[in-house]
Amino acid sequence: MSDMSERRITPRTLKGFRDYLPDSMRPRENLIDTARAVCRSYGFNPIDTPALEYAEILTGKGGEESDKQMYRFEDAGGRDVALRFDLTVPLARFVGQHIEELGTPFKRYHVGLAWRGENTQRGRYREFVQCDFDTIGTESTVADIETALVIRDIFAALGIPGTTIGVNSRKVLNGVLERIEASDRASAVLRALDKLAKAGKQAVADEMTGGAGLSATQTAEILSMASRGGSNGEILAALPAMVGDSHVGAAGIQDLADVVEGFSAAGGDTGSIKVDLSIARGLDYYTGTVYETVLDDLPDIGSLCSGGRYDDLASAYTKERLPGVGASLGVDRTLAAMGELRLIDPQPAAAGVLVAYFDPDRRNDYLALASELRGAGLAVEFYPDPKKLGVQLKYADRRGHRVSVIVGPREWDAGTVQVKDMTTGESNEVARGDVTATCVAILGV
Amino acid sequence: MSDMSERRITPRTLKGFRDYLPDSMRPRENLIDTARAVCRSYGFNPIDTPALEYAEILTGKGGEESDKQMYRFEDAGGRDVALRFDLTVPLARFVGQHIEELGTPFKRYHVGLAWRGENTQRGRYREFVQCDFDTIGTESTVADIETALVIRDIFAALGIPGTTIGVNSRKVLNGVLERIEASDRASAVLRALDKLAKAGKQAVADEMTGGAGLSATQTAEILSMASRGGSNGEILAALPAMVGDSHVGAAGIQDLADVVEGFSAAGGDTGSIKVDLSIARGLDYYTGTVYETVLDDLPDIGSLCSGGRYDDLASAYTKERLPGVGASLGVDRTLAAMGELRLIDPQPAAAGVLVAYFDPDRRNDYLALASELRGAGLAVEFYPDPKKLGVQLKYADRRGHRVSVIVGPREWDAGTVQVKDMTTGESNEVARGDVTATCVAILGV
Repeated sequence: MSDMSERRITPRTLKGFRDYLPDSMRPRENLIDTARAVCRSYGFNPIDTPALEYAEILTGKGGEESDKQMYRFEDAGGRDVALRFDLTVPLARFVGQHIEELGTPFKRYHVGLAWRGENTQRGRYREFVQCDFDTIGTESTVADIETALVIRDIFAALGIPGTTIGVNSRKVLNGVLERIEASDRASAVLRALDKLAKAGKQAVADEMTGGAGLSATQTAEILSMASRGGSNGEILAALPAMVGDSHVGAAGIQDLADVVEGFSAAGGDTGSIKVDLSIARGLDYYTGTVYETVLDDLPDIGSLCSGGRYDDLASAYTKERLPGVGASLGVDRTLAAMGELRLIDPQPAAAGVLVAYFDPDRRNDYLALASELRGAGLAVEFYPDPKKLGVQLKYADRRGHRVSVIVGPREWDAGTVQVKDMTTGESNEVARGDVTATCVAILGV
Repeated sequence: MSDMSERRITPRTLKGFRDYLPDSMRPRENLIDTARAVCRSYGFNPIDTPALEYAEILTGKGGEESDKQMYRFEDAGGRDVALRFDLTVPLARFVGQHIEELGTPFKRYHVGLAWRGENTQRGRYREFVQCDFDTIGTESTVADIETALVIRDIFAALGIPGTTIGVNSRKVLNGVLERIEASDRASAVLRALDKLAKAGKQAVADEMTGGAGLSATQTAEILSMASRGGSNGEILAALPAMVGDSHVGAAGIQDLADVVEGFSAAGGDTGSIKVDLSIARGLDYYTGTVYETVLDDLPDIGSLCSGGRYDDLASAYTKERLPGVGASLGVDRTLAAMGELRLIDPQPAAAGVLVAYFDPDRRNDYLALASELRGAGLAVEFYPDPKKLGVQLKYADRRGHRVSVIVGPREWDAGTVQVKDMTTGESNEVARGDVTATCVAILGV
């Protein structure tokens, strides 16, 4: 690469893409590890699918916007390929391809990148991590209830207070549309309704009477429904009148009642669930329960974990009917929320012991000392260069090490070690054989 | 998506890409978690960079082959972009951009996907996971030694026996080329030498006399050097004659001696290091120590963890000189090796308790029971549909659950629970209040 230095390139990331430095990456790792552990505790198993798929697998699945935002190109072999824009459409392809081997019910989680060429002015990134979990192959509302429970447990495990899981049902929404004779506009109406929180009532009303072609009365009915307040019980009681004699509407009411009751039965006092008739979700494939997750303390950040039930996920790829339900945790948005709420531990995760480097002739002895400490389960960094002690201690401090182990020529000769507690600043000279126990005591591990 | 079912698409992955089903994904997760823990124990911190970069960041960095294999395209904004082909070139861009904030020494690990449009007939995949760790900002051989130690500890933690870390030095190779007056052919010669294990002596000799333009005598010298056997001590003793009066060659010999000695000092009896003069590494950016990791029991699978020292990683992006050293664990190849050596635990990781579903009227009680078991730290799956017990137990078995909890109408009334040990087949009726303790006892957690 030395010849490259003649023509220097500005180091930069693409618009809408970003680097994660250790201070932001450590919390992201912790968050993902936590979410995975919760998924596993409910019997979900990990899978992975390629980032690149044949474009025909991805197009026409998430709606027009997804198609427009897709990173799509021709590969060197002339194939029409694209980067996935979510983990749900690849899941549909995956189950269509492997369901015989997998069997049902199939419960998977999937942590992976997705890409959308979104307008970055909205503060959105074009590359983002999602953590999805889905239950495939059952229509039982047990799976709908557990979806809400997994969301609750993830946010509880992350230590985020004031989480409300909003639930609604596409069946209820479709029931209302049936009653007001607007079923043929369902897709456009639901897409408009999904923008309510962001765009406001007037903009949504305009879209409903405009593009979606509803009458003013129909629009007013929908918007009145969406703003229906009250307790879960009050809203559930009001629903039959809203859906009239629609069968699908009645089924949706039963689904919502199941989710609310089941959630409470499974220790629901540790989290909060709220029927919210304004929740529609923008994607076309949902057919039943839909979920959004908001924080009481940060209402404007939007939904951190969203999803829903789809009755026929893999119909594009297989004739086997595969209903399912699941949700997707927005990893980066949740991290941003945790940052704003000061819920991220500023202490570097790898913090432990710094072994200072004094005497180059003793390099192998320092290495052996570091290795011994590591053998006791400690995270140990050996400073690579025999620089001034002040430089090394400053580095230890910046890196969050809580102990520095210092051995100079005098100590090597005396068979001792200086152990410095970086929090108190106190230094103790201990016998070489006691160094591990001393470090363990300070670190409290 | 229902309208898509009319024109069904064959669910398939792109050539050279693949899905990970749970049975293969669980070991991959475990492997990555293990590698990350070892990296953290040496003070490495996680980072992440985007999968997509400006093409100018990536081109011309890994050599001609990397450029040819790159997934490169124009994005919707007319930018010339490409998917990264490794994690090292993005690291160079990253440190060039952020080094002031990061400070040195900077030790990072990075787990991420990379893409190369390789010839799939060689059994290579076009999308693969790498786990890289690097120490930036020091020329100290302490960092070279620790690179070997991290490799050793990762393979030890994975329980893979018979791992040999092969080391060589580009400085030694350049010293030899200096002595035989072939320094101007270095790049082509090293690229040819890198193919020795795969292509064999004759093909490499042809490439050296052909494309690289060496004489027959020069070629013979290189190949004789590459096949030099003996103990580390014997090879190190033979090196001065091979590099003649080359200064860079002498420096390389000292580096290798440091690595071999330092490795042994840090508990080297738990792993094996071997000076191997045939190791060249194909990438252009290496300038010092180079590493490959092979398994005694699977010599043909190639190197599972490779890397080296580069004296000027970020020179394409910054005028600050940033030497570094590191290695890259081939996650997928290591998994393949572990599979062949039968080192992968066939037991599903999420295995725990299946709560069978009998009585739909008791759905909420089952949910509460499952929640209670989960509260004790168990992984618990509640079967979503009230199917025949045989079906549910077969599912529990296939999923590797070690306990099934069965509660029918009679048990609900009696306040008892049937706990079935899936390993022994034995069933016990216990009081409802004892079910958690009974499950914990069987699972031994």
